[in-house]
Amino acid sequence: MASSRDYRVRTRPSLTLQTVPSPLERLRELGLELPEPPPALASYVPTRVVPIGGGRALVYVAGQVPLASRELKYTGRVPDQASVDDAKQSARLCALNLLAQVNAAAGLDKVEMVAQVIGWVACSDDFGEQPQIINAASDLLTDVLGDAGKHTRAAVGTNALPRGVTTEVAAVFVVRTE
Amino acid sequence: MASSRDYRVRTRPSLTLQTVPSPLERLRELGLELPEPPPALASYVPTRVVPIGGGRALVYVAGQVPLASRELKYTGRVPDQASVDDAKQSARLCALNLLAQVNAAAGLDKVEMVAQVIGWVACSDDFGEQPQIINAASDLLTDVLGDAGKHTRAAVGTNALPRGVTTEVAAVFVVRTE
Amino acid sequence: MASSRDYRVRTRPSLTLQTVPSPLERLRELGLELPEPPPALASYVPTRVVPIGGGRALVYVAGQVPLASRELKYTGRVPDQASVDDAKQSARLCALNLLAQVNAAAGLDKVEMVAQVIGWVACSDDFGEQPQIINAASDLLTDVLGDAGKHTRAAVGTNALPRGVTTEVAAVFVVRTE
Repeated sequence: MASSRDYRVRTRPSLTLQTVPSPLERLRELGLELPEPPPALASYVPTRVVPIGGGRALVYVAGQVPLASRELKYTGRVPDQASVDDAKQSARLCALNLLAQVNAAAGLDKVEMVAQVIGWVACSDDFGEQPQIINAASDLLTDVLGDAGKHTRAAVGTNALPRGVTTEVAAVFVVRTE
Repeated sequence: MASSRDYRVRTRPSLTLQTVPSPLERLRELGLELPEPPPALASYVPTRVVPIGGGRALVYVAGQVPLASRELKYTGRVPDQASVDDAKQSARLCALNLLAQVNAAAGLDKVEMVAQVIGWVACSDDFGEQPQIINAASDLLTDVLGDAGKHTRAAVGTNALPRGVTTEVAAVFVVRTE
Repeated sequence: MASSRDYRVRTRPSLTLQTVPSPLERLRELGLELPEPPPALASYVPTRVVPIGGGRALVYVAGQVPLASRELKYTGRVPDQASVDDAKQSARLCALNLLAQVNAAAGLDKVEMVAQVIGWVACSDDFGEQPQIINAASDLLTDVLGDAGKHTRAAVGTNALPRGVTTEVAAVFVVRTE
């Protein structure tokens, strides 16, 4: 968190130059690599691109789970079966997969806006820190995409997610197509 | 409910005149005041405006919780920790906050349509009256916005919501931008 | 499932001709009849059509429940109160109702794409097969609409749905309006 804030302060002067780091450069600076976009787990597709005029399109992205190298990394409900910290890592991994999907569909450098994020957290009945957990997804989006990564959001709890994962995150992006 | 029906009947004749009450006048007639739009509770923004051509835009609004004067007014699950009536008040307050957000982003008088509402109700496992509860949000939208306030909707239960709130409601509006 | 795959293989050659079966013909071949679109259960509308330029529109469809002939066909949580097979039938019926709604709003033959499906499965806390259940909805969409029926998707669990139904499915379609 702290490092990403410092980072944004440092880059602010460059906004007037052509040296604003690209999303892929930002990922590198964060020590992250964009994974292969995970295939859909079932009868659906990872992304759908809907042109909306003005050289732009909505990109709907399927709900992403904490998959890395085709393995589910975080399962179990918060806080009794998975820690809050693990749940945050889970949410962050979901967001990384969102980025991989939109990069494959349209190119990360084409993202103009993230319109909507819906984040589900598998949790016990008396748990109320879903926002802090989904923040880890939100923060990654803005760390990588800058202002374009800012988004509206609904974060909710649930008693159960597919294959026992801790978090699932879906999103709608806006991209430039021209 | 009854008073809002009477209200609509009374105003029907004026539909052919220029005296249709504005959304802000309707709010006043309902005895409501538009609150300051609540700030986002976490790493996101309350609204995102996406132009879709034809002088219109989608306005995505983040999930609203029953905040008033920066205080959470309704917490606990229905029906064991919160009554059905309190849950309805909670949903209505979420809708009031949706209106405050879209007013700040685009102006309530610019609303052409409410495309989608998703309402979550924190409830016990055997509770099935989510629609009646989310109706309190839906009714406020149509009471204030008239036909423009009619919307598609998904109302669902959940075992847990952020900070223990009773309801959370997100929406996508369509507004005129020209 | 198998029959629908065979079916698609058989029709592939006809893609270059004008003999591609229409969605309504596909429904007939599947032995299905499009029901009357179920009325909204509460203060909302079943569909909202949002023009997005280029002769196309988004069609938001309200969350559909397993209603047939105005009766709820599948209730109870998976797997303790409802079987996985019943839950699949429930999801399939939700998808049939989605098709009925979009047919009434815009015509099934106008569907260009299904942008997004959100499927909720009422289930016990340790259940993780939501994707297999919502597949029954997804498969019906692609069986009837072909490639146009492919969609992004979020499938999640929940502890409770309206009136105790087993599944609820909402969607956003893209249709041609010119």
